Amino acid sequence: MAKKGEVSDSVIKRLPRYYRFVSELVRDGTQRISSGELAKRMSVTASQIRQDLNCFGGFGQQGYGYNLPELRSEIVRILGIDSSRKIILIGAGNLGMAMANHMNFSDYGFKLIGIFDSDPAKKGTKTAGLEITGTDTLDDFVRENSPDAAILCIPKENAKETADHLVKLGIRAFWNFSHCDIAQGHEGVIVENVHLGDSLMLLSYGIANS
Amino acid sequence: MAKKGEVSDSVIKRLPRYYRFVSELVRDGTQRISSGELAKRMSVTASQIRQDLNCFGGFGQQGYGYNLPELRSEIVRILGIDSSRKIILIGAGNLGMAMANHMNFSDYGFKLIGIFDSDPAKKGTKTAGLEITGTDTLDDFVRENSPDAAILCIPKENAKETADHLVKLGIRAFWNFSHCDIAQGHEGVIVENVHLGDSLMLLSYGIANS
Repeated sequence: MAKKGEVSDSVIKRLPRYYRFVSELVRDGTQRISSGELAKRMSVTASQIRQDLNCFGGFGQQGYGYNLPELRSEIVRILGIDSSRKIILIGAGNLGMAMANHMNFSDYGFKLIGIFDSDPAKKGTKTAGLEITGTDTLDDFVRENSPDAAILCIPKENAKETADHLVKLGIRAFWNFSHCDIAQGHEGVIVENVHLGDSLMLLSYGIANS
Repeated sequence: MAKKGEVSDSVIKRLPRYYRFVSELVRDGTQRISSGELAKRMSVTASQIRQDLNCFGGFGQQGYGYNLPELRSEIVRILGIDSSRKIILIGAGNLGMAMANHMNFSDYGFKLIGIFDSDPAKKGTKTAGLEITGTDTLDDFVRENSPDAAILCIPKENAKETADHLVKLGIRAFWNFSHCDIAQGHEGVIVENVHLGDSLMLLSYGIANS
């Protein structure tokens, strides 16, 4: 199905949420849904749904609703999560290990192919089907395997330097849990930040102002 | 320092980032900074900084810049992160354990006071200075300790039911890692969602469209 021109950033940001709701409906065997019913489930307006989904094709038919399996396939295609992009993890601390073990990377278009940590004590530990490797082997590994992306779960102090080095090695996308500004100075590098502390601060704000 | 009327949601969402940059400057001993210099560090425009920080008081003085320790104190006050709100963790899997061990809750206005898991095998395990407790003790614990918030790190299947139950017990704020819509049906309940999968999908989109 062809795109109807450019899809705006704000629609893209909402796509993962559409994907979750639509996937669940498909999993439950639902074949189609009206914009009104989907809107109710997602706690948004039907007009927003019509507008958003209109951006990338004509799934909705007046009086018929959306064909859910088709809609799901199209969202998958747009997000590119039917790929198997190679991703490596830098930092096997609490958070890094949780990401390695908790995330089903294949659900999101990725395959975890390496885990690196500078702590020699961690070297050789098996996790998520991989052996933790010393960061001294990182350069060779990246040259040999050309990962598409890296997960940064390292302290802020080393994060910028590590990111700069990985960009030099050719990595162009980062899932960044470290509090550093990777994009700065690297045009075209793709960064998705997960700032857990920011989120917790906003929870605090919410409580303070409720 | 008095607020200048209401602070908009979009400014609030940017506050944690201001907090991080300003805190780092204060930690490094910097006393004041111009909006232009702060803008450069944060990769935003000086006019956005002036507009944002203008919302809640007159820190910036023409030709002098912002008094950083004062600015930091004010952001801390607005976010309410000088508090010590009681938070409990539900779900001591990979992700829950990482949160318990990785996050310095006190930096964000919280104190972790209990960890609960339904798996009897985990009961008694010590982590982050706390003993993991069975979910059968949750009701009594909440009644006795009145936690302000709960972290949900449980599978989607049980999340909505657990959240509903916690709301009934009086918990009004959630840091939610589970893919469920807690707010639905609970007016006034504060929810900060961390959808790790959504973030990873957006990284995939970024790569697919770069």
